[in-house]
Formats: sequence, structure tokens, C-alpha cells
Amino acid sequence: MPKTLSLAEVADLINGQLDGQVEDIKHIQVTGINTLNDSGKNEISFLSNKRYLKDLTSSKAAAILVADNAKVDEHLCVIRVKDPYLSFACLQRFFHPDLTASGKRHASAVIDDSAILADDVDVAAGVIIDAHSRIGKGTRVGAGCVIGENVQIGTDCLLHPKSVIADHCILGNEVILQSGAIIGSDGFGYAWSGTQHLKIPQVGRVILEDDVEIGANTCIDRGAIGDTVIERGVKLDNQIQIAHNVRIGAYSIMAGQVGIAGSTQIGSGCQFGGQAAIAGHINIGAGVKLAAKSGVMSDLEAGGIYAGSPAMPHRLWLKVSALTTKLPEIWKAQRATKN
Amino acid sequence: MPKTLSLAEVADLINGQLDGQVEDIKHIQVTGINTLNDSGKNEISFLSNKRYLKDLTSSKAAAILVADNAKVDEHLCVIRVKDPYLSFACLQRFFHPDLTASGKRHASAVIDDSAILADDVDVAAGVIIDAHSRIGKGTRVGAGCVIGENVQIGTDCLLHPKSVIADHCILGNEVILQSGAIIGSDGFGYAWSGTQHLKIPQVGRVILEDDVEIGANTCIDRGAIGDTVIERGVKLDNQIQIAHNVRIGAYSIMAGQVGIAGSTQIGSGCQFGGQAAIAGHINIGAGVKLAAKSGVMSDLEAGGIYAGSPAMPHRLWLKVSALTTKLPEIWKAQRATKN
Amino acid sequence: MPKTLSLAEVADLINGQLDGQVEDIKHIQVTGINTLNDSGKNEISFLSNKRYLKDLTSSKAAAILVADNAKVDEHLCVIRVKDPYLSFACLQRFFHPDLTASGKRHASAVIDDSAILADDVDVAAGVIIDAHSRIGKGTRVGAGCVIGENVQIGTDCLLHPKSVIADHCILGNEVILQSGAIIGSDGFGYAWSGTQHLKIPQVGRVILEDDVEIGANTCIDRGAIGDTVIERGVKLDNQIQIAHNVRIGAYSIMAGQVGIAGSTQIGSGCQFGGQAAIAGHINIGAGVKLAAKSGVMSDLEAGGIYAGSPAMPHRLWLKVSALTTKLPEIWKAQRATKN
Repeated sequence: MPKTLSLAEVADLINGQLDGQVEDIKHIQVTGINTLNDSGKNEISFLSNKRYLKDLTSSKAAAILVADNAKVDEHLCVIRVKDPYLSFACLQRFFHPDLTASGKRHASAVIDDSAILADDVDVAAGVIIDAHSRIGKGTRVGAGCVIGENVQIGTDCLLHPKSVIADHCILGNEVILQSGAIIGSDGFGYAWSGTQHLKIPQVGRVILEDDVEIGANTCIDRGAIGDTVIERGVKLDNQIQIAHNVRIGAYSIMAGQVGIAGSTQIGSGCQFGGQAAIAGHINIGAGVKLAAKSGVMSDLEAGGIYAGSPAMPHRLWLKVSALTTKLPEIWKAQRATKN
Repeated sequence: MPKTLSLAEVADLINGQLDGQVEDIKHIQVTGINTLNDSGKNEISFLSNKRYLKDLTSSKAAAILVADNAKVDEHLCVIRVKDPYLSFACLQRFFHPDLTASGKRHASAVIDDSAILADDVDVAAGVIIDAHSRIGKGTRVGAGCVIGENVQIGTDCLLHPKSVIADHCILGNEVILQSGAIIGSDGFGYAWSGTQHLKIPQVGRVILEDDVEIGANTCIDRGAIGDTVIERGVKLDNQIQIAHNVRIGAYSIMAGQVGIAGSTQIGSGCQFGGQAAIAGHINIGAGVKLAAKSGVMSDLEAGGIYAGSPAMPHRLWLKVSALTTKLPEIWKAQRATKN
Repeated sequence: MPKTLSLAEVADLINGQLDGQVEDIKHIQVTGINTLNDSGKNEISFLSNKRYLKDLTSSKAAAILVADNAKVDEHLCVIRVKDPYLSFACLQRFFHPDLTASGKRHASAVIDDSAILADDVDVAAGVIIDAHSRIGKGTRVGAGCVIGENVQIGTDCLLHPKSVIADHCILGNEVILQSGAIIGSDGFGYAWSGTQHLKIPQVGRVILEDDVEIGANTCIDRGAIGDTVIERGVKLDNQIQIAHNVRIGAYSIMAGQVGIAGSTQIGSGCQFGGQAAIAGHINIGAGVKLAAKSGVMSDLEAGGIYAGSPAMPHRLWLKVSALTTKLPEIWKAQRATKN
């Protein structure tokens, strides 16, 4: 049964100001939120990216979340809020609340007798949970997940189908793994013996702190010695590779296909674009932003914005990128000067 | 039992012209197709890439598929066709036809009672099919696949082992998923609340239209709102990342490890090289070609060929790449001019 | 029960020279090896990277593995060896030996009657082994792995959970697959028919020779015709994409997210950094080193060191990279000269 709210209730929920010259505006009922283009008259929409300003007046939405100071046509029905995107998120969470664990255990799941699961943990079909692992209350384990030996999983986690948590790894509370995520693969460690690459046993763990989300098919290697640590609130997109003994600071966020080499330490609140890569044994300060496809081979101070490979300050990179396309002109002018 | 064809039948099958000064050439029997180097005397070969021209005369193949106008040694036995690579494909499909579904259901598969499968659908060991999903006739589901709730799968699809289709996603007819493909992982959407990245429920679907193939460990995120759509005939290689609300136009083709960020719209008939990446909210026109490792941060008009990061017209990139290696020379000359 | 060694025994095991002014030094007992910072007084440590020289004197380790000729404070207890990293590897292997297969077969595993497994092969929960496959003695198959039809696996292999080996592929002895590795996905081969991309059946195999390790979620496509071959002792990190008909020479090693396009031939002893990529139909000589993010579009001679995209000799790349950041200066100077 879909939830329904009046516009007055919506405005109240997100601490916004309802504004529009429509009769009985407060009592208009809405059942969800949608894009400007696709909203029906019983839906809310939002404007958080000026690219979509063009779609504002044609939207059929009952009301549109806009910034406090936004200038909009008088005939539009809007709800003014501080941060329309955040308000959109809050409303979307209201209309689509998380499912609740209820202790369902599918008969096909293989749960070792020594594993300890809270009563309400859901375990879907084909799940395998190995010896001595523990799973906290409210956690839901999706179809076909593999949980190794002596794994600790906190409360209210969500493991999407076919994610893997290898032996001895630790997940905090409210951790989400997307499908195909691999937590605790071996780090890539060998020593050349003179005749072969001798594998170094990887005996550390992976620790995912509370509120971490790991994307689909992302891999996080266990530490060689000691642990690979993903701190509280970090969000990693799909197909990211985190090597052994990396530490990622709290609330850092990385887009798809990023790669971080071994033992690199990353501060809190960093933001990395897709396909960015960082070499091993590097220190990245807090709040560093890397553009997509950046390649970092040396330490970066806190708060900087970088781009390019090798990475350079973003402002310099903008100039360099523009001038790179002028190399034919530079070359030609120099030949002319010579002659 | 391997299939056998006479050279006359081969030529007939691919509408080619058999040509060679060999006795009774039409009745030579062949059982398959192979590379120039590895062909035996009962095999056909083909020349579709001039890199392999050197292997032509030493090939033991019974006959070689060549272009209509190819100049070859008189003693070679050839079949002249318009497009040797296409003819190779057709012959290979003749010698190695698809397997046919026969309704096999492995006892270990977990199929929800409310799921509706056509009679001849094959379901291999360890497969999990959740509530209300539907699978059309002729489809084969490989070992260990997970199909979520309310998934729709068309006819004659092939799901290789351990692919995942999450809740509510839709596959057309003749769709192929390689192993480890993830269809319908959550998009990467958060709003900063002031203290944490607040997850935005991802409530859209993924729609794969007819004749789409998705590579191994490729991930396609469901829409945040609305759907992520991969149009008819699109082919995606391995380890590609498609973010939420992307649309990829019909018959576009992408090589391995490409990444497409959220809400980007890609026209039909595009061709992207490996590790190319496109930022979010971008429009790419039809028929655009991107070289491997391109990085696109702005809209691209239909029909262009681009390379580099940031991407530039391919012709310019060729010049720029060549001149980049001359930077030491440019620098030195400029220093000399100064002094 | 943890293993214990005296420092004399440690020195003996790695052919090192124990050195330090500590009473009864030879009989100090150690139970493992750890980093300089984290070692306790019953642990060994090692110095193999000068970045960590600063941690040497503060380490609590019982003894530290250092290079033969290292100059260290007299009060430090050291074991002098030729190659501290190799000695670390040997000791770590002593303290953490591989588990031994014992013939455990989980009841939930689905093993086709025609498959032939050596008596001591371990098969974990949820494993699927299809018809006519063979597995050699000492091999351990982790939870949820899928092994297709007619697969051959040698002795003493280790398949981590959820790895996939598709039909007809061959693994030598002592091969390791990390979780989510896909061996034998279809190569990316199509011919344009005029109206669609016609799939070319991929009928070759993947052959992994002895002592190969394949990283988590790495994909190795089967050959189109003929085989994709990974030679003896090759080590591939996570999320690497190897296309059809590639050959990788013995003991080559590649970091995460590398991509190799179809039919490329790579010599032995190569070393590729993360996210490096090589175009199709290329020949790379033995011992070539590629920096991270390199892009290779033409053949490379044996023994070279390359970087950049398009790749150039590493020395040139260092100059070019430095001068790239001077483009604004070059541009400005040129404008000045003109006027």
C-alpha cells in the first residue's frame, strides 16, 4: 500500500515552506517523488541541478522542491528548502523505507552450527555461513552470499545477493554490500625467489566500520599483516579496487573503478572521481578531491583539488588541458620563429 | 558429431565464390574453421586483418575466406566474399550452433512457487529464482544465477553461471549475460546530511532490450528514479560500469572497463574503446567513436571520433600526442631563443 | 597452536646473520612477524622499503630483518640477509603454512557423477561441478564455486569462494583463484551483419599453467578459436580484464584493473602497473615494464620501461610530465616573443 502525504505534511517533514497560488494547496495529496519530466500530478519533484531548469515550468508535479532563494514562476507550486537534494533524499526515504528483518531462514541456506545469528537475521536461499561467524540483529543476508569463518557482522546490515565476506573480516553496523562485492580477498603480495614469485600469506583482515557501503563487484583486499580499514560512513561505488593495508578515512566517497594501491592512507572526507588511481605507500590528506581519471604518485596535502596523471592542482590542470590542444600551434609558431 | 560441409556447400552458405586450381575442389570436405596458422587441411580459414597477411601462403587450410578483390597467390584455394569476417562469423555459427533449452530443472535450484517459467526453460544447479519472476521460452539459466523478485526475462536468453538480476529488472529476448554480470545493483546516490552521506533509495529498474549482451563482472545500476535502459543490440564487454539512469542507444558497443557516470545519454551505434569514461549528465550523439582511455566531460555531437582525456577530436589528438613527446625539444628551443 | 622459533632458528631458516648486543640473543623466542610499528617483543620485523626507515629505532620487535650491508644503530637486534623482503616472505610462509586438503565434501555440493576428483580434494558448501570435469589431489574448492563441463584442474590448487571456471578450461598445478574470478567467459567477438552485431561463437579455452594466481573479480576470456594462455607463474591482481586469445608469458605480473585487448601477446617477466591497458593484436617483448595507467597501442621491444598514454619510454615520460605543467609558461613566453 503506497504511502500518501498532503503537501502540508511534506513541507513539515522536510522543514520547508509551501508556496503557490493554488486552491487548497495544503491538502493536495502526493504518493511519491519523481523527476521534473516524469512526475504526475500526485507526485513531488525537485530541482537540484541547474541543467534541469528547462524542465521546471513543464513539470506536472504537484509541487517542486527548490532552494530557499530560487526565483520561479509565480504559477508554480514549490516547497522552499535549504537543500533540495537532501530534502529529496529524506522524502524518498520516507516513501521507500528499508525492509525489516524478520528472522526468515531459507531451508537451502547452509549455516554452520557454531555460527551465532541474532533471532531476526534474515538468511536467503543459497547463503553459506561458516564456522564461528556472528551476525547482529536486523541484518539481512541476500541470496547466495558467502560468509567465511569467524566473520563478525554488526546490526542492521544489508548484504545484497552474491557478496562475499572472507574469513576473519569485520563489518560494523548498518553496512551495505552490493552484489558481487568481495571483502577480504588476498592482497597482491609476492617476493621474487630467483625462480618464481613466492606468495606471501596475507594474514590481516578487512574492517568495515559503521555506515559503510561497498559497490557491486568492488574488491577490498585483506591486509598482508595488520588490517585494511574502511572507516565510518565511507561510500565506495562499483568495481573499485582497494589493495592490502589501505586505510580510507571517515566519510570519504569514491566513484566507480577507482584503484588504490597497497598501504596508502587516505584522510577523511575525500572525494575521488571515477577511474582515479593512487600508487602504493602514499598519504592523502583529509578532504582531498581528485577528478576522474587522476593518477596520484606522491603525497597530497589536505584540502587540495587535483586532476590529471600525474596529478596536479586542478586549476593548473585546467590551463594545461586547454594548452595541450594548442601544442600544434605552439610547435608551428616556434618553427616560424626559428626560421 | 561434428558437422561436415563440402567447399561448394561452404561457398553456397556464405554466398561466396570458390576459386582455386585444385582437383575436385568443390567436394573437399571441411569440419570447421580455424586461424591461418592453426588450420588443418580439413578446415577453412579467413583473412580479415592485414596483420596476418604473412600467414596466408603457409596456411594448410582447405580454403581461405578473402575479400572479393583480394590479390592472392594462384595456388591458394580461396572463397571470395564481400566481408570475410562476417562470413567467418556465419560459418562459425553454423559449425557451433547454440544449444537448445529442453526444460531441465536441477533439483538443487530454488524456484519460488509464484515464479512462472516457460516449459522448456533450463535451470541449472544452485540457481535461485525469487517470487513473481517470469522467464520466457527457450531461456537457459546457468549454475548459481540469482534472479530476484518480479524480474521479467524474455525468450531465448542465456544467463551464464553466477550472473545476478536484481528485483524488478527486465530483460528482453535473446539477451546474454556473461558470468558475474550484475543487473540492477543500487545506483550511487547520497545526499550529505551535515553529518553523513544519506543513502537515497534507488527505486528504478534496469531494462535490457532484445539482443543485448553484457560482459563478465559488468555492473548496471538500477535507476534512482526511472530506469537505466540498454537499448536493442547493445554489446558491453567485461568489467564495464554503467551508473544509474544511463541510457545507451541501440547497437552501441563498448570494450572492457569502460565507465559511464549517472544520467548520461548515449546515442545509437556508438563505439567506445577500453577504459574510456564519460562523466555524468552528458549527451553523446549517435555514432560517436571514443578511443581507448578517452575521458569525456562535455556533450559530443553525433558522428565524431574522439580521443584523449579530456577528449578532443581524434585527428587533433594524434597531432597533440606526437607533439607531447617533443615538449623537451620545444622547451629547449624556447630557452635558446630567450637567451 | 602458534609456532615458536628462537632467533637462532629464525636466522638459520633464512640463512641470515644474527647480530645484536643482547644477552642470550640466540634463545629469544618469537611467534610471528609484524610491521616495524606493530611488532611486539615476541615478533620479528623487517625493513625492505626505506620509507619505513624512520620506524626502525622505535620498533619493539625482537629482531629486524635488514639487508646485509645495512647500517643500523648498535643497540638494535638485527638479522642480516641478502633480501629482507624475500626472507620476510619465507618466514611468513613458515608461520602461516597452507592448509591441507583432507577430502571434505559438503553435502550441499552438487558434483556430477561423471566428474573425477582425487580422494583428498576438498569441496565446500554450494559448489557445483559439472560433467566430465577432473580435479587433482590436494586441491581445495571454496564455497559456491562453479566448475563447468569438462574442466581440468591440477593438483594443490586453491579456488576461493565464488570463483567460476567455465566449460573446457584447464588449470595446471598450484593455481590460485581469488573470489569472483571468472575463467572462460566468452570473448567479445561480433561481426556487423548490416543490421546487428552478430555474435561469433567463442570456442577456444583458457589455459592457466602451473603456479598462476588470478585476482578477485578478474576475468579471462576464452579464445575465439584457439586458446587464451596464461603461462607458468603469472600473477594477476584484482579486476584485470584479459581478452580472447591473449598469451601472457611466464612470471609476468600485473597490478589491479589492467586491461589487455584481444590477441595481444605478452612476453615473460613483464611488470604492469595498475590500470595499464594494451590494445589488441600487439606484441610486447619479455621483461617490459609499464607504469600505472600506461596505454599501449604499438609493439614494444623486450626490456623497455614505458609510461604514459600513448606509452613512451619512461625517461622521456618523466621529462614530458614535468614539462606538461610548464605549458602555461611556454605559452606565455611564446606570446611574449611574438609581440
